[in-house]
Amino acid sequence: MIKINENYLKLQASYLFSEIEKRVSAFQNKFPDKDIIKLGIGDVTKPLPMACIKAFHHAVDEMAQYSTFHGYGPEQGYPFLRNKIASEDFQAKGIDISSDEIFISDGAKCDTGNIQEIFADDIRIAIPDPVYPVYIDTNVMAGRTGKFHKGRYEKIFYLESTMENSFNPAIPDEPVDLIYLCFPNNPTGAAITREHLETWVEYARENRSLILYDAAYEAFIRDDSLPRSIFEIKGAGEVAIEFRSFSKTAGFTGTRCAYTVIPTNCTAYDGNGNKQFLHPLWNRRHCTKFNGVSYPVQKAAAAVYSEEGKAQVKELIDYYLKNGALIRKEISELGLKCTGGENSPYIWVDVQMDSWKFFDLILEKASVVCTPGLGFGRCGQGFIRISAFNSFENVQKAMSRIGEAVIGKD
Amino acid sequence: MIKINENYLKLQASYLFSEIEKRVSAFQNKFPDKDIIKLGIGDVTKPLPMACIKAFHHAVDEMAQYSTFHGYGPEQGYPFLRNKIASEDFQAKGIDISSDEIFISDGAKCDTGNIQEIFADDIRIAIPDPVYPVYIDTNVMAGRTGKFHKGRYEKIFYLESTMENSFNPAIPDEPVDLIYLCFPNNPTGAAITREHLETWVEYARENRSLILYDAAYEAFIRDDSLPRSIFEIKGAGEVAIEFRSFSKTAGFTGTRCAYTVIPTNCTAYDGNGNKQFLHPLWNRRHCTKFNGVSYPVQKAAAAVYSEEGKAQVKELIDYYLKNGALIRKEISELGLKCTGGENSPYIWVDVQMDSWKFFDLILEKASVVCTPGLGFGRCGQGFIRISAFNSFENVQKAMSRIGEAVIGKD
Repeated sequence: MIKINENYLKLQASYLFSEIEKRVSAFQNKFPDKDIIKLGIGDVTKPLPMACIKAFHHAVDEMAQYSTFHGYGPEQGYPFLRNKIASEDFQAKGIDISSDEIFISDGAKCDTGNIQEIFADDIRIAIPDPVYPVYIDTNVMAGRTGKFHKGRYEKIFYLESTMENSFNPAIPDEPVDLIYLCFPNNPTGAAITREHLETWVEYARENRSLILYDAAYEAFIRDDSLPRSIFEIKGAGEVAIEFRSFSKTAGFTGTRCAYTVIPTNCTAYDGNGNKQFLHPLWNRRHCTKFNGVSYPVQKAAAAVYSEEGKAQVKELIDYYLKNGALIRKEISELGLKCTGGENSPYIWVDVQMDSWKFFDLILEKASVVCTPGLGFGRCGQGFIRISAFNSFENVQKAMSRIGEAVIGKD
Repeated sequence: MIKINENYLKLQASYLFSEIEKRVSAFQNKFPDKDIIKLGIGDVTKPLPMACIKAFHHAVDEMAQYSTFHGYGPEQGYPFLRNKIASEDFQAKGIDISSDEIFISDGAKCDTGNIQEIFADDIRIAIPDPVYPVYIDTNVMAGRTGKFHKGRYEKIFYLESTMENSFNPAIPDEPVDLIYLCFPNNPTGAAITREHLETWVEYARENRSLILYDAAYEAFIRDDSLPRSIFEIKGAGEVAIEFRSFSKTAGFTGTRCAYTVIPTNCTAYDGNGNKQFLHPLWNRRHCTKFNGVSYPVQKAAAAVYSEEGKAQVKELIDYYLKNGALIRKEISELGLKCTGGENSPYIWVDVQMDSWKFFDLILEKASVVCTPGLGFGRCGQGFIRISAFNSFENVQKAMSRIGEAVIGKD
C-alpha cells in the first residue's frame, strides 16, 4: 500500500500568502471597482535593469544558432556567473570566497527549503520567530518537529525577536545544532550588527552548530558598519552557509536566479563525531536533483555585475529605499512604532491590535494589502509587514489611505 | 552537534555522468587534437525552435517595461501554459486531464527526484534495472534503501529489463508500493505496448500501489499503436503520476521547463489506511519549496503549441529519429544486437563485453563518447547507450569510426 509522508498532515492548513490571496480575491469579487494596492507579498514591481535585458536577449539569440546553442549546463552554474559573484560580491569586499564555493540555483526559496535534506533527522533546530515560513515548513515536512499547538511546533527552539531585543534574538541558552538566521530580516526589516553576528559565529563554533544565513536582502544595506555577509566574520566559513538571491537585488522574482555559498571547509559531523565536509554533500544533492538554471537567465544575472548593471541595480534599490523611508515616516506620524525600511525593503509595524484584524481593516477601509505578522510566527502577533516594493505613487496613495483608515478606525 | 544525513554516505562515489566527464577530460588532456564526438549524455544539440525564440524575446521585452513586467508567478505555472498543455497534450488526444492537474517545473529531473518526498519512509519501491540513476539515488538519500553491494541497494525491488523480456520488466511477484516506469525508456530505448501498460495499471489498482510514469521521451513515439501517456489507460488516473519535459521535445535542456501531471483523484493512504489525495500534498510541496519557472521560459514553452511551433518540433524530432535509424542500421551491420532508435532517441547496444571496457575502447580508438550501460544498473552490464542527439554528420562520422574500432578491436 502506497503511504503518504504523514508529516505533511501536521502542516498548517494554508500557506500564509495563499490565505492572503484568498482574502484579497474575496474582497475584489465583492468590490470589483476598488483600486487595491499590494504592499503584501514583497514582490518587486520595477522592470529588470536594461543591462540584464540586453544580456538576456543576446543569450536567447545564442539559443537560436547551432554554433552558440547551450544544452545542459553545469548543475552548479556557469563559471562566467560563479566567477563574477565570487569576485564582485566577496573578494572585492575582502571576503575569501572562491567561485567553486558558489552554487547557482533558481531561487533562495528552493535553496533554503532544500538545504535541510543534507542533515540528520534528529538534529535540534533553532528558528527565529517571526520568520519567513519556508524554514519551518520544510522541517515539518522532513519530520523534525512534533505537532503544532498554540502557534508553534513541538521540538523547535524558537528564537524570539521582539521590540524588547530590537528584533535580534538572544543566543540560545541550550545547545542547538542548526540555526536559521536572516538579516536584513524578513519580516522585521531588522539588521544585525557585526558584534552581534560575531557572537552567533562564536556560539556555532563552540557548540559545533551550523548557521544557515539568509542574506537575500543584503543589497538594501546602506549602513557600511553592518555586515553584508556572514563570511565577513572571522571563522564563519567553517560553521555557516549563506543564501543570496537576484530576486530583490535586481528584480528577478519572475526571472529566477539565486545562489548558495558553501565554503569548502564548512563542516558537520557523522554519527561517530567524525568531521564531514558539507560542500561535497550539497554538490551531490544539487547534481542529483537539479539540472542548472536556464542559460539565458544566468547570462541576464551576470549582467548585474557589469558597470552599467551595477549602476542600474543601485538606482533600483534606491527607489525602493525611498519608498521605505516614506512608509517609516508616515507610520511614525500615526504614532505607531516600526522597524526596518532602512537597510531593508520591509517595515514591521506594531499595530497594537490583532494582526489579521489590522490586515482586514486596511484591506476593507484602505484597499491596501499588507502581510499580517502572525503569519510569520507567534511573536508576529500585533504586527504587520509593509513592503516597499511598489511604485512611489502607489506607496504615497497607500500610506495616505492607511492613515485615514487608522485614524478613523474607532 | 550538527549531524549529516548519513544516507548520503551510502551513495556510490560518483554520479554516472561525472565519471564519464572525468574520463573524457583525461582523454582530451592526453590528446588535445582529437575531435571527440559525444553521443553520451543525451543532450540535444539543435537550436530552439524559432517559434520559441520569438516568444522568448517577446517575453524578455515584457520584463523591460513597468506595465508588462512579471514578478512572482503562480508556483504551479501560468494558466497560459497549463491550459495549452491540458488541451494539446491530453484533451486533444482524448485523455481527460485538466489544467489544474498540471504542475509546471524547471525539469523532470527535479520532479522525478523530489516526488518521493510526499511518500512515507517505509514504503517498498520497485525500480527498473537499468534505469536513469535519479530515481534510485533520491531514494537512497531519503533513507529508503539499505547498503549498496554487488551493484544493488538493499530493500529495493529491481525490475529487470533484459534482452529476454524485450526490456519490458515483468510485473512483480510480491507487493510493491511505489513503481517507477519510464517509456520510451532511458536507457534502453524500449517502448511499452498498451496491453502491457494495462497490466501495470491493473497491478497498481489491485495492490494499492502508485506508478510514477516518466514520459520525458514521449515526443519520439511515431508508432500510433503505442501509448503516449499512462492516462490513456482506463483507471490510471487514480494510481499514476506522469512526468513530461520540454527538454527532449523542443530542445529545452539548457532552457529548463517540464511538467508533472497529478490527477485530482490520484490517491495514496495514511497509516490508518484512509485515502489521501496526492494533488494537494504535491501542491503544498511545490508552493513551499519552489517559486515557479522563469516567466520568459514559460512563454517560450507555450510557443511549442503554436502551429509554427508544432511543425518545428516535429522537424526537430524527425531529425534525431533519422540519426537513430542510422545508428541502428550501422550497429546491426556490425553484427551487434540493439533496441531503441525508433520511438526513442536512445539505442541500447549489446556489446558482448564489459560496458566500461567498451566505453574506453571507443573513446580511445574512435574518439566517440557513449554511456556505459553498467552505469544504469546491473542489468546494463554488457550494454552501452548511444544517443541520437547530435548532428547527422557527426553521427555518420561517429558510426564509421565505431565500426573501424570494433572490427579492429582484437
